[in-house]
Amino acid sequence: MPQTRHVERHFTASEVVRDVVIGMADGLTVPFALAAGLSGAVSNAGIVVTAGLAEIAAGSIAMGLGGYLAAKSDADHYAAEERRENQEIHEIPKEEMKEVADIFRDYGVGEEHVAAVVEAMTKRPKQWVDFMMRFELGLEKPEPKRARVSSAVIAGAYIVGGLIPLGPYMFFTSAHTALIVSICVTMLALVVFGLVKGRYTGARPLKSALQTTITGGLAATAAFVIARLIS
Amino acid sequence: MPQTRHVERHFTASEVVRDVVIGMADGLTVPFALAAGLSGAVSNAGIVVTAGLAEIAAGSIAMGLGGYLAAKSDADHYAAEERRENQEIHEIPKEEMKEVADIFRDYGVGEEHVAAVVEAMTKRPKQWVDFMMRFELGLEKPEPKRARVSSAVIAGAYIVGGLIPLGPYMFFTSAHTALIVSICVTMLALVVFGLVKGRYTGARPLKSALQTTITGGLAATAAFVIARLIS
Repeated sequence: MPQTRHVERHFTASEVVRDVVIGMADGLTVPFALAAGLSGAVSNAGIVVTAGLAEIAAGSIAMGLGGYLAAKSDADHYAAEERRENQEIHEIPKEEMKEVADIFRDYGVGEEHVAAVVEAMTKRPKQWVDFMMRFELGLEKPEPKRARVSSAVIAGAYIVGGLIPLGPYMFFTSAHTALIVSICVTMLALVVFGLVKGRYTGARPLKSALQTTITGGLAATAAFVIARLIS
Repeated sequence: MPQTRHVERHFTASEVVRDVVIGMADGLTVPFALAAGLSGAVSNAGIVVTAGLAEIAAGSIAMGLGGYLAAKSDADHYAAEERRENQEIHEIPKEEMKEVADIFRDYGVGEEHVAAVVEAMTKRPKQWVDFMMRFELGLEKPEPKRARVSSAVIAGAYIVGGLIPLGPYMFFTSAHTALIVSICVTMLALVVFGLVKGRYTGARPLKSALQTTITGGLAATAAFVIARLIS
């Protein structure tokens, strides 16, 4: 059972583009919403900048380091299951052969051919283990080495994404003025980001842009209303 | 190519437990770090509470709604690829048959049996498409209906997790005092959370506890240092 946030699994572009999209989606949304929320409660843009930068630091570390540790732990798990599967095909080969046979019977393969497929499999233990990992456990081989680069790219994209909505608060001393500029800049960034993301995921660009903009807008509105209510 | 943050994919417990873990990992970390960071810059706990609640609102919406939309878009993509694969086995069956044959040749299955397996596959178009989805595209059927519940649980867990570090700031007017209490409470929560998570993911509980605590601690330290430096 995958412990994943639901994020789109299909991507036609490079893995770097995918990682940039993952980090930037949250980076554009959460710091934007936090800054907007605080603007509803304080008039000094300086505090918004402080909180925003603290959030960007925290969020990028949570996404980057948290993600890296999870990927490593994922790789450990795969290695452990692979060892167990390897042990099983040596210690209880009959049962493992039956499992392979059942999979092919399900695909409607005739008995005599099932036996031949199973036999072929037993002659290549490495591929047999791979097959069991994929079919019995639904596990794909993770790439632990890529995880380090990937986590760094995600964290970096979160930082870049977060600095966009925060920028205006660094230029205007009035939080109110900065908020208006931030909304314009970030909404534009969310639309562009959604269009680009749509191109890479194969989704309709306009639908994708609508989704990123609505998520960012709703998060900011909720944060603003809550901060207003309690301040 | 999966567009996922790296999070652990193996889980022995129910999907609800998995979703609680996903939401709470970030909920305990980011609002904790943001509150700690702001405490380094402001003395009034009230502002920390406002910023913290705004962050919790923003973060839970980004994780929940963002995740839900991605899952839906994932399901759309699967359906589109399934239609395309279905069309291909009807329009260019020879090529699709060759693709199946190649997969089994790779597993070392003899030519005469490869032909039989391919033939069996062609008689069950539905299973044939499933097979191609899994092997050619590496796609597993998503469950769009579960996505709604799952996203809500993740968002809820983020809120509950985030209220733990924020609680002390609601009881103490001095941000400094609240920070010390928040660190104690949250570090304890991160240890307990890591132990419980370890039990469910099959990782060693102590290692898991160490990881959640270090991630939270590092994020909070970074946020604190940044806020101190700029304020």
